[in-house]
Formats: sequence, C-alpha cells, structure tokens
Amino acid sequence: MTLEEAIKKIQPLDEEAMEYTRARWNTLGKPLHSLGRLEEMVTQFAGIYRDKKPHLGKKAVIVMAADNGVVAEGVTQTGQEVTKTVTENMTKHNATICIMSSMSGADVYPVDIGIATDCDNPGVLSRKIKYGTDNMAKGPAMSREEAIKAIEVGIDTVAELKEKGYNVFATGEMGIGNTTTSSAVCSVLLDQSVEKVTGKGAGLTNKDLEHKIEVIKQSIALNQVDANDPLDVLSKVGGLDIAGMVGCYIGGAALQVPVFIDGFISSVAALIAIRLVPECAPYLFPSHCSNEPAGHLILDAIGKEPYILANMCLGEGTGAVMGFTIADYAFKAYWELPSFEQTNFGTYEELN
Amino acid sequence: MTLEEAIKKIQPLDEEAMEYTRARWNTLGKPLHSLGRLEEMVTQFAGIYRDKKPHLGKKAVIVMAADNGVVAEGVTQTGQEVTKTVTENMTKHNATICIMSSMSGADVYPVDIGIATDCDNPGVLSRKIKYGTDNMAKGPAMSREEAIKAIEVGIDTVAELKEKGYNVFATGEMGIGNTTTSSAVCSVLLDQSVEKVTGKGAGLTNKDLEHKIEVIKQSIALNQVDANDPLDVLSKVGGLDIAGMVGCYIGGAALQVPVFIDGFISSVAALIAIRLVPECAPYLFPSHCSNEPAGHLILDAIGKEPYILANMCLGEGTGAVMGFTIADYAFKAYWELPSFEQTNFGTYEELN
Repeated sequence: MTLEEAIKKIQPLDEEAMEYTRARWNTLGKPLHSLGRLEEMVTQFAGIYRDKKPHLGKKAVIVMAADNGVVAEGVTQTGQEVTKTVTENMTKHNATICIMSSMSGADVYPVDIGIATDCDNPGVLSRKIKYGTDNMAKGPAMSREEAIKAIEVGIDTVAELKEKGYNVFATGEMGIGNTTTSSAVCSVLLDQSVEKVTGKGAGLTNKDLEHKIEVIKQSIALNQVDANDPLDVLSKVGGLDIAGMVGCYIGGAALQVPVFIDGFISSVAALIAIRLVPECAPYLFPSHCSNEPAGHLILDAIGKEPYILANMCLGEGTGAVMGFTIADYAFKAYWELPSFEQTNFGTYEELN
Repeated sequence: MTLEEAIKKIQPLDEEAMEYTRARWNTLGKPLHSLGRLEEMVTQFAGIYRDKKPHLGKKAVIVMAADNGVVAEGVTQTGQEVTKTVTENMTKHNATICIMSSMSGADVYPVDIGIATDCDNPGVLSRKIKYGTDNMAKGPAMSREEAIKAIEVGIDTVAELKEKGYNVFATGEMGIGNTTTSSAVCSVLLDQSVEKVTGKGAGLTNKDLEHKIEVIKQSIALNQVDANDPLDVLSKVGGLDIAGMVGCYIGGAALQVPVFIDGFISSVAALIAIRLVPECAPYLFPSHCSNEPAGHLILDAIGKEPYILANMCLGEGTGAVMGFTIADYAFKAYWELPSFEQTNFGTYEELN
C-alpha cells in the first residue's frame, strides 16, 4: 500500500461501537467510570475495530532496525555494529525486548529497514531501504523518496502481520545514533532548543553530550530543514527506523488496529505521523514516559498521557509492550466484571 | 504482635543486598540504568528481603472491610449494606478486585475488621473490632484503643499470610463512606482545605458534595482533632478499614515484605503509617494515582511517584494489584536478561 493510499483509507473511529461500549461499561457492578482510562481504552479499541464486541487478538511488536550515518561524528558510546548484533539477538530470545514481550504475551518482529551491513537472518524481516542513512552533519540523511519508501515498509509490515491474525501492535526500534536523530527532529518540530531536547542516550560524558548537541545544531542548519514539512524534517535529520515507525502508525490507522507507542524515539515518530496525518492520532496509544530529557515534552505535544511512569529509556519497544498489559487488564475487566444484577447491590446513577 | 513490638522490629533496608543487586543490573546487556524504576524496584526488594537473590513469591491483596457511622449523615449514594455484599462477593470471584487479581496472579483476602452486621462467611477473615465506627459528625469515630487494635489486626494479617508463603502484598478496602473519612484525615494531616481534598466518591450530586464537605468540616471541628497526633486523627475522623491498612504497612515493614499501596484511601492510610513510623516508608510502594481530587497530593505527601496513571477510583485494591505486574516485569528482566557476555556487544561504561 502506498502512503497516499493509506492516508485515504483512514476513517474516524466508529462512534456507534464506542457508544455501545460506553453504555455496557455502565451496566457493570462498579461505581460509574471508576476504571477510568481502562474503560476509555476498551471504548476506543471498539471504535478502532468498528466492533461492538471488541476482543484483543494476537499482539506484535514491530522493531525497526536501522543505522544512522551521523554516528561517524562520534555521537554515541558504542559502534554501529551493535545495531545488527542486537537485532539478530532478537531472533534468539537474547534481547531485552524478547524478555519483556514474553511477559506481555507479544511476538517480536525485527525489521531490517536500514542496517549498515547485510543481515541474512531468516528471523529478521528484510526490508532494507539503504545501508544506513547518510551522515546528516554533511547533508540530508536520506532523500524524500527514501523516507516515503521507508514509511511504506511500516505500513506494509502492519498489513502483513494483520493478515497473520495480529490485531494490536507496538513499535520499537534499534539503531545506534537514533537519539541523535530523534532529538534533531524533536527540536525542529517542537521549536525547542537542541540543548533542551538532547540527552546522553545510551551513555555519554558531559563533554560528549556537548559535542552531540553541536552536531545536531550543525545538521539542522546545514540541511535548511523546513519545520512545516514533516517529510522534509524526517528525510533530512531523521532516520529509517523513525520513518518505518511513522509507517506503522499510519498503517495502523489505515488498517484499523491500535498501535502502542514506545519511548522517546517512537514518540518522535508518532509526532511526525500525526503532523503528516492528524486523523491517525486516535489509533495511537501511549505506553510509558521515557527518561530522555524530552520524554514528557513529546508526549504532551502529541496529546498522549503515559499509562506507565518507570523512567525507562531502553528502546526496542520495551515500554510499549507494557502497554499491552494495561490493555489486558482493561479487556479482562470489561468482559469478566459482574453486572449490577450479579453483584446484588443495585445500580449507580449518573448525577450532576 | 503489638503495634509497639512491630515498630521496634523495623530495620533500615539491607544496603549490602541492594549494592549487590545494583551491581548485577550493570552486568546485564542494556545501557546502564535504562530500565529505570524497574531496576530500582528489584534493588529495593532485595534490601527489604535482605536477600542478594530476591525472588517474588506468592502475592496477596488484603482487603480491609468496615463500615463508617458517618453514612448516617447522607454522604454516600449507596447504603452501608453494600459493604458486606461486596465483601462477600469477593469470596465468590464476583467483585472487581477478583478479576484484576486473577490477571496479576494474586490471591484476595477480605478481612471483616468492622462491617456493621455479622458476616459469617468462611471466606472472609473475621477480625471485627466493632460493628462499624460511630458517627464522627457526632463524636469520635472510635477510641484510640480501638484504632490501635485495628492496626494490630493489619499487622497480624500480614504475619499470618507471610507464614503461608506470601512475600509481596497489596492493600485494598471496602467500606461505604470511606472517601468521607479519608478526605477528613487528608485535610487534617496535610493542612489542606476540605473542599480541595473532597470528591464525589462513588457518585454524588453537586449539592450532595457540598453536604459531604460540610459534614467533614463539622466532624473535624467537633472532635478537636490534633493534626500532630496521627492516632488521634485516625481514631476521631478515620475508619477501621484505614486503621487496618496502616497495620498492613507497619506490619510489612516489621516483617520485611514490600506492600503496594492502592488509591486514595490506601494512600491516606500510608500517610498515617509514615507519620507514625517514618521507618516504614521504604517498604511501601505506590501503584496508581487515584482519580479522586487529592490523588496526586497525597502521593506527593508520602514521597511516592505512581507507576500507573489510569484515573481509576474503584478501591478494593484494584490499582494496587497492577503494581504486582510492574514487579513481575522488573523481576523477569532482572533474572532473564542476557549478560553483556551473552549479547556480544561489550559493556556500557558509567560516564560523567
């Protein structure tokens, strides 16, 4: 599916299904609205699925893996070979996302959307757009066409997994250097200083952090980034992993499935998706708030309040899959709570 | 165990076990500290258990059920018979806490610490102090001795369940009228206006809310409550359910087991416990932030940041048991994450 086709397919949520679900919550034996955002989540899922009787199906976390040319500038503690190593570890239950996902009952799908070297691993979906982006400190990270192609990879990955029976998704990423690109995008799109939105990523000295900030500033200036054009920002100072996740969000909305956003990098991708296609916003769900300096800022910007506060900043989708568990609680309550009739204590009334 | 004995048993957390756990986290294949509060939770549990190799055992939620004489003033939408009905429903998997607990793998222990009528149900622990408190709008809710006895019920319940192999606890409550008592305690102990800390509980009209506020003000004034004496506040304008939970927290600290706090009413009990015995604070863990008006305020006052933001306000321990799930994620990561050696990408270094 092309990006254009996906955008055309996006509909508002089904109000009728939501109304039905809201009303059914009020027949359950508990004070009205007392399960708060759990009630709202099930209702929103009903609107997304266009189904008065929504159920969670199989859960998938899509991990977009890509390298970033900007690592040549020395903005990271580790080398870019780690991107491929960790991505392949995901196929061997040997990465943090695998452990967290097994707790949440989700399957992990790593996608090579731009690892810098060949990755011939049958457990990794091979969707390489290019061998890592170019160094954004010297020129655009990628062309606009490459960014669109990468978004379409995300859309198609959701489509393919939906075909396999998955109906709830989370995004994750693996890409050395991707807090650098994310801070660049965040600074431009939110019109915030680079200092304010840049942190130490997976580990830097204070001096290295200053250097990272300088590299980001230089990249934004050199590329004459247009803040009013999300695709321009994404292609010039973003990354292929971010683009792939943008596609997951737009694809989720087009294909009527909810998608949980992970931390900082995922949220930056969600911001781009929402700026490109505001209609996809109701299909997206927050999970946790990243411990990166701009964690809260970016969630505020996309109008999503986190469900989980754990100061995590590991990426890979590790926080997003905890969102699945919140959904599990919500759906379990929705389908298993006794009705007022069963509880023998009469109903609660809506009062003002 | 008496309250006095319990207080004497409380020790600071075991620094050696915590140091060991912190160091072991840093051998796991992920950026340092990137699992944030999950890492801190396991470390704190190690300090609580005084065990370098901490494991979660069986999980119990203790639900303190009691009636409140103040319901005679018309501060609630439902009658006090609901307290007993819901408590008995808990023995038949017919209450919200049962559904939420089965998701989190916890067992539910309802305790009759002060239901207004006889409750001869073998599934309810029979620990009645009295048949509901007296009407605090006319005089003290209970005597100081009764409050202490109720606290000791909480301590003994934790002791009894620890004997049965439980090593992680949550508190919940069931008691029509207990947002009224909790707002009274909260107002006095935090020196905040009654208006600011009082909400509609399980459902009231705006006019009823005004009346509830008046009743609370009258109760505080009439009883000449001493804000510097937590036991005075608890006995005069608190409840037996709150007192029982105070006991769970102090008992948890004395018996070296962590206890998850639920929402508003549970947090008020935690505030009393910490004011009485500040040393119990590190044994207590927040879960969610209640949607009651003073939800955030009370968590701030006890220095606990919630893990979950879901705008819930159902009580019974329904949010606290979600805290167990956060612990499950934390422990799963701690024991199953690959080491740096296994991940093949070298170690991360602590840098400044």
